[in-house]
Amino acid sequence: MHANLGTMKLYVALDLKEEERRHLEESVSDLEIIYPNGDGEDSRLNLFNDSDICFGNVPPSWLEMTSKLRWIQLESVGFGEYQGIPTKREFEMTNLKGLFAVPVAESVLAGILALYRGTDKLAIAKRQRIWHGASMRADLSLLHGSRILILGGGSIGQKLIKILSAFDTKITLYDKYLEHADIDEIHELDEAIPNSDIIISCLPETNETIGLFGKERLASFSRESIFVNVGRGSVVDETALCQKLNDGELGGCVLDVTQNEPIGQHHPLWDCKNALITQHTGGGYDKEIIGKVDIFSENYRRFRSGQKLMNVVNMEQGY
Amino acid sequence: MHANLGTMKLYVALDLKEEERRHLEESVSDLEIIYPNGDGEDSRLNLFNDSDICFGNVPPSWLEMTSKLRWIQLESVGFGEYQGIPTKREFEMTNLKGLFAVPVAESVLAGILALYRGTDKLAIAKRQRIWHGASMRADLSLLHGSRILILGGGSIGQKLIKILSAFDTKITLYDKYLEHADIDEIHELDEAIPNSDIIISCLPETNETIGLFGKERLASFSRESIFVNVGRGSVVDETALCQKLNDGELGGCVLDVTQNEPIGQHHPLWDCKNALITQHTGGGYDKEIIGKVDIFSENYRRFRSGQKLMNVVNMEQGY
Repeated sequence: MHANLGTMKLYVALDLKEEERRHLEESVSDLEIIYPNGDGEDSRLNLFNDSDICFGNVPPSWLEMTSKLRWIQLESVGFGEYQGIPTKREFEMTNLKGLFAVPVAESVLAGILALYRGTDKLAIAKRQRIWHGASMRADLSLLHGSRILILGGGSIGQKLIKILSAFDTKITLYDKYLEHADIDEIHELDEAIPNSDIIISCLPETNETIGLFGKERLASFSRESIFVNVGRGSVVDETALCQKLNDGELGGCVLDVTQNEPIGQHHPLWDCKNALITQHTGGGYDKEIIGKVDIFSENYRRFRSGQKLMNVVNMEQGY
Repeated sequence: MHANLGTMKLYVALDLKEEERRHLEESVSDLEIIYPNGDGEDSRLNLFNDSDICFGNVPPSWLEMTSKLRWIQLESVGFGEYQGIPTKREFEMTNLKGLFAVPVAESVLAGILALYRGTDKLAIAKRQRIWHGASMRADLSLLHGSRILILGGGSIGQKLIKILSAFDTKITLYDKYLEHADIDEIHELDEAIPNSDIIISCLPETNETIGLFGKERLASFSRESIFVNVGRGSVVDETALCQKLNDGELGGCVLDVTQNEPIGQHHPLWDCKNALITQHTGGGYDKEIIGKVDIFSENYRRFRSGQKLMNVVNMEQGY
C-alpha cells in the first residue's frame, strides 16, 4: 500500500504561524510541503489534486474528485461534513480524537481536586480576604483510595485511567464496545453507581446515552459522590442534578458540557452548591496548534512505515 | 530484640471514636489494648509504665522513667517537645511523617491544576454568573510535558514524583541528602530553576532553607513558571514574590504555608495576581485519625516481624 514514498507532497489546509510551520517542517522533513494560502480556489484545488497527503480540513466536494490522495488528517475531532459524500474512498481519513484527551483529562483532575481539596472555595475566600485555615481540613477528601467509575473508554477515558491510577484509586471502566472494559452492560452499570465515589462520563451523544442520567438513575448515586461530565450535556437531566446537589444528596459535580452553552442567566446551575462549571474549556490549551502538528507527525511516521494510523474515522458509526 | 511478643500491651494515648477503636482493634488483634481515658494522671502513668508500646503523645516526663517501653508511635509529625529529655532511650520513637504526604501531594496537584486549567477563575466566574467559555482556552496550560523541579525528596516529594510522572512530566529532584536525587548542590539548583515550569518546595526549615528564595533567586525564575510552597513559609521572600507576580514576571504561585498564618488583612498576597493561598489546609482530610491508625498498624506489623520501623525520628537532626 505504501510502496512509493520517495517525493510525496503534503497539502497543508490549515493556517500555521511561522513557528508552527518550522515545527511541522522539522517533524516531516522528507515531504514536499505545500502551503496554498494566498492562492485562488482553482489554484488551490489543483495543488490539492496533485498531493498525496492532506493535513487540515478541505471543502468536502474536493474529496469527491480526488484520485491521488492517500490520506487526509483532519484538524478537528468532528467529521460530520464529510459523512455521506460520494468518494472513491481510496484514501484514509483520520481525525484529532486524541488531541483533546490530555487537556480534558487534566481538566477532569482539576475539577475533582478543586472539590476534594477545597481550592474552589479557597479561590473565592482569597477575593473576600477570608482565612478558613484549619476549620476546612475535616471537610477535605482524598482521591487516594477512592472508587472511580469511568463511562467511555475512548482516548479521554484511557488517559484518565493512567493518571487516576497514580493516585492509588480503584477504577471501574464501563464501555459497551471495548473488549477490556470492566463492565459493559447497563445492569452492571446500575450496580456500580451506588458504590462509586466519583462517576465520570466521557460518553458521546447517541440514542442510548441521551438522558442516561435521568432522575431515577441519579437517585442511586451515593450521597457523597461526585458526578463529572466531559462527554455531552444531553447525558444528564440538569434539573434533577441541581435538585440533588441543593438537597445535599450528592457531593458535587464538575460539568464541562451542558445542554446549552452558555447556560442562561437564570439557569439553576449558577447557584447550585458544590457544582463546578468549567464552561467547555476542558479541551483548551495554549499550544493547541502545535499539538495538532504533533498528531499529524506521529501519524505520518506510522503512514511512512506502513503501520496502522491513529484515529481512522468510522464514517458509518459517526465517532 | 523482639523476642517475647506473646502478650504485649499497647497504651493508646490519643482519643479514638468507637469506629476508630474498632479499626485499630481489627488491625492489631494480638495486642492487649489499654485505653486510659477517664483514669487519673497517676493511674494512667502506671498503665503506661506497664506497657510495651505506646500509640500517641504522652507527657515528655513520662519517657524519662520508663523502662518497659520498647516503642512509641507519635500521633504528630513534630517531636520537638521530646528533644533533649534525658531518657535511657531503650525504646524507639516514630512519628507520622508519611501521613500528610498523600493529602499534601493532592493539594499540590489541586493548586497547580487550578492555575493551569483555570478552575480558580471558573469558581469565581460561577459566583458572578459570567460565562468565559472558549475565550479562556488559549490561556490554559498543560501539566503534560512540563518541567518540574521538586525541592526535598521526603515523603511528600516522593508522592509527588509518583503522581506527576503519570502526567508525563519531566521531573528533577533536588535533595542535599538523598542518594538518588538528580541534583544535590546549590549551583545545580540555580541552573535548574530558569529551565523549570513548576518549582515545588517541600523543604523543612533549617538555617540553609530560610530565605532560600530571596529576591535574587526569584529573579531567575522563568516568566511563565509557577512557584509552589508546601514546606515552610520562611523559605521565600513574600514581598519579592508578590512583586514578581504583580509585575507579570511569574506565572503564578500556590502557597500552603506563609510566614504568618493567618496572613494579615493588608497582606499583599490577598490581592496578588495568580496567587492561590491554600491556608495550610494541605494536610487535612476527613479520615485523618483512621490514617494515623493505619500508619501505626503498618509499623506494628514491621515491629512484630523485626523489620525496620517507618519514620524513626532523628532527635539530633530535628526532622
